[in-house]
Amino acid sequence: MIGGALGAFMGDVHRRAMALTGRFALTAACLSGHPETARAAGTALRLDPDRIYDDWATMARTEAARPDGIRLAIIVTPNYLHLPVAAIFLDAGIPVFCEKPLTNTLPEAEDFAARFAMSGDRMALAYTYSGYSMVREARTLIRSGRLGPLRSIQAEYLQDWLGASDAPGGWRLDPAKGGPGGCLADIGTHAFHLAEFVTGLRCNALSARVSRLVPGREVPDDAQMQLRFPGGETGGLWVSQVATGCGNGLRLRIFGEKASLEWAQERPEDLILSFPDGHSERIVRGATGVTAPSLLPRGHPEGYLEAFARLYTDLADRIEGRPAPLLPTLADGLRGQHFVAAALTSGAADGAWISLTP
Amino acid sequence: MIGGALGAFMGDVHRRAMALTGRFALTAACLSGHPETARAAGTALRLDPDRIYDDWATMARTEAARPDGIRLAIIVTPNYLHLPVAAIFLDAGIPVFCEKPLTNTLPEAEDFAARFAMSGDRMALAYTYSGYSMVREARTLIRSGRLGPLRSIQAEYLQDWLGASDAPGGWRLDPAKGGPGGCLADIGTHAFHLAEFVTGLRCNALSARVSRLVPGREVPDDAQMQLRFPGGETGGLWVSQVATGCGNGLRLRIFGEKASLEWAQERPEDLILSFPDGHSERIVRGATGVTAPSLLPRGHPEGYLEAFARLYTDLADRIEGRPAPLLPTLADGLRGQHFVAAALTSGAADGAWISLTP
Amino acid sequence: MIGGALGAFMGDVHRRAMALTGRFALTAACLSGHPETARAAGTALRLDPDRIYDDWATMARTEAARPDGIRLAIIVTPNYLHLPVAAIFLDAGIPVFCEKPLTNTLPEAEDFAARFAMSGDRMALAYTYSGYSMVREARTLIRSGRLGPLRSIQAEYLQDWLGASDAPGGWRLDPAKGGPGGCLADIGTHAFHLAEFVTGLRCNALSARVSRLVPGREVPDDAQMQLRFPGGETGGLWVSQVATGCGNGLRLRIFGEKASLEWAQERPEDLILSFPDGHSERIVRGATGVTAPSLLPRGHPEGYLEAFARLYTDLADRIEGRPAPLLPTLADGLRGQHFVAAALTSGAADGAWISLTP
Amino acid sequence: MIGGALGAFMGDVHRRAMALTGRFALTAACLSGHPETARAAGTALRLDPDRIYDDWATMARTEAARPDGIRLAIIVTPNYLHLPVAAIFLDAGIPVFCEKPLTNTLPEAEDFAARFAMSGDRMALAYTYSGYSMVREARTLIRSGRLGPLRSIQAEYLQDWLGASDAPGGWRLDPAKGGPGGCLADIGTHAFHLAEFVTGLRCNALSARVSRLVPGREVPDDAQMQLRFPGGETGGLWVSQVATGCGNGLRLRIFGEKASLEWAQERPEDLILSFPDGHSERIVRGATGVTAPSLLPRGHPEGYLEAFARLYTDLADRIEGRPAPLLPTLADGLRGQHFVAAALTSGAADGAWISLTP
Repeated sequence: MIGGALGAFMGDVHRRAMALTGRFALTAACLSGHPETARAAGTALRLDPDRIYDDWATMARTEAARPDGIRLAIIVTPNYLHLPVAAIFLDAGIPVFCEKPLTNTLPEAEDFAARFAMSGDRMALAYTYSGYSMVREARTLIRSGRLGPLRSIQAEYLQDWLGASDAPGGWRLDPAKGGPGGCLADIGTHAFHLAEFVTGLRCNALSARVSRLVPGREVPDDAQMQLRFPGGETGGLWVSQVATGCGNGLRLRIFGEKASLEWAQERPEDLILSFPDGHSERIVRGATGVTAPSLLPRGHPEGYLEAFARLYTDLADRIEGRPAPLLPTLADGLRGQHFVAAALTSGAADGAWISLTP
Repeated sequence: MIGGALGAFMGDVHRRAMALTGRFALTAACLSGHPETARAAGTALRLDPDRIYDDWATMARTEAARPDGIRLAIIVTPNYLHLPVAAIFLDAGIPVFCEKPLTNTLPEAEDFAARFAMSGDRMALAYTYSGYSMVREARTLIRSGRLGPLRSIQAEYLQDWLGASDAPGGWRLDPAKGGPGGCLADIGTHAFHLAEFVTGLRCNALSARVSRLVPGREVPDDAQMQLRFPGGETGGLWVSQVATGCGNGLRLRIFGEKASLEWAQERPEDLILSFPDGHSERIVRGATGVTAPSLLPRGHPEGYLEAFARLYTDLADRIEGRPAPLLPTLADGLRGQHFVAAALTSGAADGAWISLTP
Repeated sequence: MIGGALGAFMGDVHRRAMALTGRFALTAACLSGHPETARAAGTALRLDPDRIYDDWATMARTEAARPDGIRLAIIVTPNYLHLPVAAIFLDAGIPVFCEKPLTNTLPEAEDFAARFAMSGDRMALAYTYSGYSMVREARTLIRSGRLGPLRSIQAEYLQDWLGASDAPGGWRLDPAKGGPGGCLADIGTHAFHLAEFVTGLRCNALSARVSRLVPGREVPDDAQMQLRFPGGETGGLWVSQVATGCGNGLRLRIFGEKASLEWAQERPEDLILSFPDGHSERIVRGATGVTAPSLLPRGHPEGYLEAFARLYTDLADRIEGRPAPLLPTLADGLRGQHFVAAALTSGAADGAWISLTP
Repeated sequence: MIGGALGAFMGDVHRRAMALTGRFALTAACLSGHPETARAAGTALRLDPDRIYDDWATMARTEAARPDGIRLAIIVTPNYLHLPVAAIFLDAGIPVFCEKPLTNTLPEAEDFAARFAMSGDRMALAYTYSGYSMVREARTLIRSGRLGPLRSIQAEYLQDWLGASDAPGGWRLDPAKGGPGGCLADIGTHAFHLAEFVTGLRCNALSARVSRLVPGREVPDDAQMQLRFPGGETGGLWVSQVATGCGNGLRLRIFGEKASLEWAQERPEDLILSFPDGHSERIVRGATGVTAPSLLPRGHPEGYLEAFARLYTDLADRIEGRPAPLLPTLADGLRGQHFVAAALTSGAADGAWISLTP
């Protein structure tokens, strides 16, 4: 693990998700750019002192040379370090699982993707929400034709933790470290990935309004946009980190000719299907007929960590040589950068439609 | 009543809503443009045969001359007849309660408004949803500052009754009778009026995508747009009559700095207020501290007819000389036409921002 | 109408429910036992002064003699007057629609029923909740076998308006006027009738705990009981008027071998069916396939008054000679008295099982 | 770990819950009574071959003697083995974490408790649901007086996995292995513990109906009862494993004079508080002002495993010498046996009130 010192939210989440699978052990880490912090954190996690590293280059080189070296590097640094660190490990022959967004700017992402295009499935992105059972069930239902041809795809991702002018945004609000994307990069990429993941469609243009609703902010904290898809399907996407009263309100509604479907991250165990005849159905994780993988039986709630653990299960499968086709890839990371760039461009051009080349 | 023969949905609704108030009697009507239908319907409603009319001009003239003549004319004809009929009754000195939308085109609406500007509160529009108790409570809460300065206004109105290509849309789908507005006129005007009614804000520009999602249709059946307000508030509005699984899904979410508020027409008895500290409150019609008018005690559901009846109560108050400041006016009707025209223009111009002059 | 002066909740509800049907006119009344109040109320309701009565005996005699006399007497007096008044009108040949509970004690009810057994459908009881569309749909679904053989019937009716020691209970808390049944008579009879109405089963024994949870009260304000049915079905029923936070929480859950069903009065438009395979279905009033009668289309909420109006529609049908098999009868009223008496007896005997002879 | 071979639901759950805490390692086990199964399972879990045991007596003796021996024995065997195994480990000086119910019969439980009364907090019971954040928050709220004096405690625990006559109940349906308690022991003990845990009250009598609703079954699959508490509080408890459509429907409603509270295991992140003035509040795990411990921020769902992990966190605290006052104890296990015995006795005596001595 690179980054993720104690107290860092995402580092902790990755460690717990790994533990849930029972298929990973954290054996080496460079948990901080500050040597003392890195060492203290590594010690607290009971790592072998020889495998607590001060810098990731040394770590990559040393681990690649060990016969019992790490088989996966987990990158949970601030955004601007994702690609430099990933490049070092990939060059050392070690697969990478990287937090999203891929990086801060599209050109960096494109350069990296060009260079590592061949690494294909040696790099995976932590689009966590695609790990929820019922998100995968939704994808299966849509592919099976249960909704008929799609008409409208509506995604929203609403939080309020940046709602106050003195909110503790840290590096996420600093364009130099978190990039210019603000809420688009931080949560918009999740919502956009989910919309495409579940529907199997590729958005080909968007028209966005991008705002900094809290005065004095340097990156967007709220953006709303319209989406176009090649088959004439329409869509909307709204992301906000200043939507008062919202915790982690990621929600997807997909309307087809034969049925519509709704999923909400804060109630992740259900899918609601609604039909033209006016009745609706609640489909529950673990119930008969639900094919998506489950850790626990029906009625025993799974949550965020179980979703995250599903990505680690996919990673373990891949490392052991089995296919893991649903795991987000480098290409999905690059796609997220295209999304952020297009939204920023459209927002700056008063909502002009910007094409998202596939 | 003009229009509203037996079997016409809105005529029946108006009659029941009136009856709920106990303050109106239907005494004269021209229920159809077809004399036989008009007479049969009037007879079935037990009207005095002398006051069953074949044409509205005769009706206006005759009733205006009677000492016991009607004190309110209710217009529930197809859209294209609203203004010609309204003009005749207003000219005869009889106040009018007219279905929305005001008419089919903006120029007609502007001409009419210019001519009858002085009639002011002698004409009211049936923006039904503004009659719900908890809609009025929402308005009061926002005016009281409970939400703080607003950030985002999100409205949607989703139905699916036009979802099939052979849906029985009748005159609503015929541009000559229902106008070019389609879903924008039929339900968009409701959603737009509600958003302005509840927030007290006036939208000053919109950028719309306007679609005919069912092939072969001549008027839009789905439209989604972004809204701008003078104080920098942002907004979104989505209307659809092809949103599979939706009955009459009118829903309003309003986000302020101090709280957000949600109301949904299909669960009209509640308002949900959510706060930055993560807790939320359900406020119920009829509960202590709720100031909006109620017909029934808490827990005894009121619905659509009770909302409609509230407009009739306002009308009765006004006829008896009391103020009815919440009743939608001719100006609100004209505003609806501006909304439809702006959305159509923007849609035709690939989402260009179109100003909505106040 | 006898009783129901202005300001009396139930009188007003009856008048509005009648008005909703468009098939009744209030033409004569004795709205209070106090002549002045009766006259003032009648005048306010614009009754013909000749048909505003000071006493119900005169009213029954006079109206029975008029060629245009009333065709239905509506009794909304306090409980202890229900039967004396009903007897007078039935004796005069005028059908009666009476508020529940039938009366205050079982012997009175039995005497009355013995005397008027022959009047059969000339007397109906206002078990309002059986008028909800989705309650009737639930009954139909169960009769159709959709739930399979039943296992458990769970009813609850929770209110909190008597939760405070100084709650304005009026005659309902006075055993002399409201009878000894307290919450059992006031709302328990509704819940019990509904459970039998919907399932088609007849409870044959109950074991009750009957409490006066607010100190100083003379009649029960909370009671909970177990139910037995002849086929071995089990059941539970809980009624409370001191259940803090509950408005009018009447709720029914019925479990069969093939499915379970849930209906809640505060969200009356839906039925939820749940199945052994773990999925559940929401069935909505007005949707395709729903056979219960509706006033309004799907998504346009009906509520309490529309349910009440359905009983008046049944009454109008019966008066016009059509069958109205779902209308609660004198026998249903007597059944309610048996229920109250059995629960009081069981409560006084520390929960002994008391038989409810059919 | 004793019991819990691969494929056993509870063994897997314990292992994942431990892993989530990051404070436990599984180092020794006797995963089955069948030596081969025990060895295969231990190997699959990558245990040191020396510490895969064929029998628990050897395991207890050997581990107690090792300097690096286990510090906690986790018992996930069928019910009838809980106490024999626990006794061996406690005698060997090793603390025990035992699945519920404590055992199959009250006398066994009493003997055991008498013998190990002194071990006090050296034995803990897996009443999983008391580990949910919002269950603990509910307990805190009630102790703080937020609900006022309590009036009614209503618990229910509804499942349907034994609904079919050929349901795979295994040892749970065999009185010799699972005991005579059936659903009372298997899930009733959870519900009863939760009711007392959250309210801080001790039930002093119950009156039960205990049924075998599926023909041919030897142990109860459905039971409903009334509860009495010393302060005059009333209560109800319903448990069923044949309630069609219910997954794991554990639900608690507690009514006080000042507020009521509701929690449901299938939506464990919320508490709903409702007030006499008619409004209600949703309190969310992780929100400001919520004092219960959380693993994840607001809006990132925790579920069943996180609740379970909280018990392991308590155990780790206790092993490290810190207090863990909320951890269920041997006394709580004994209490569960009293509950089962009382319910069976009452059920057999036609619902006679049976005292539950504290």
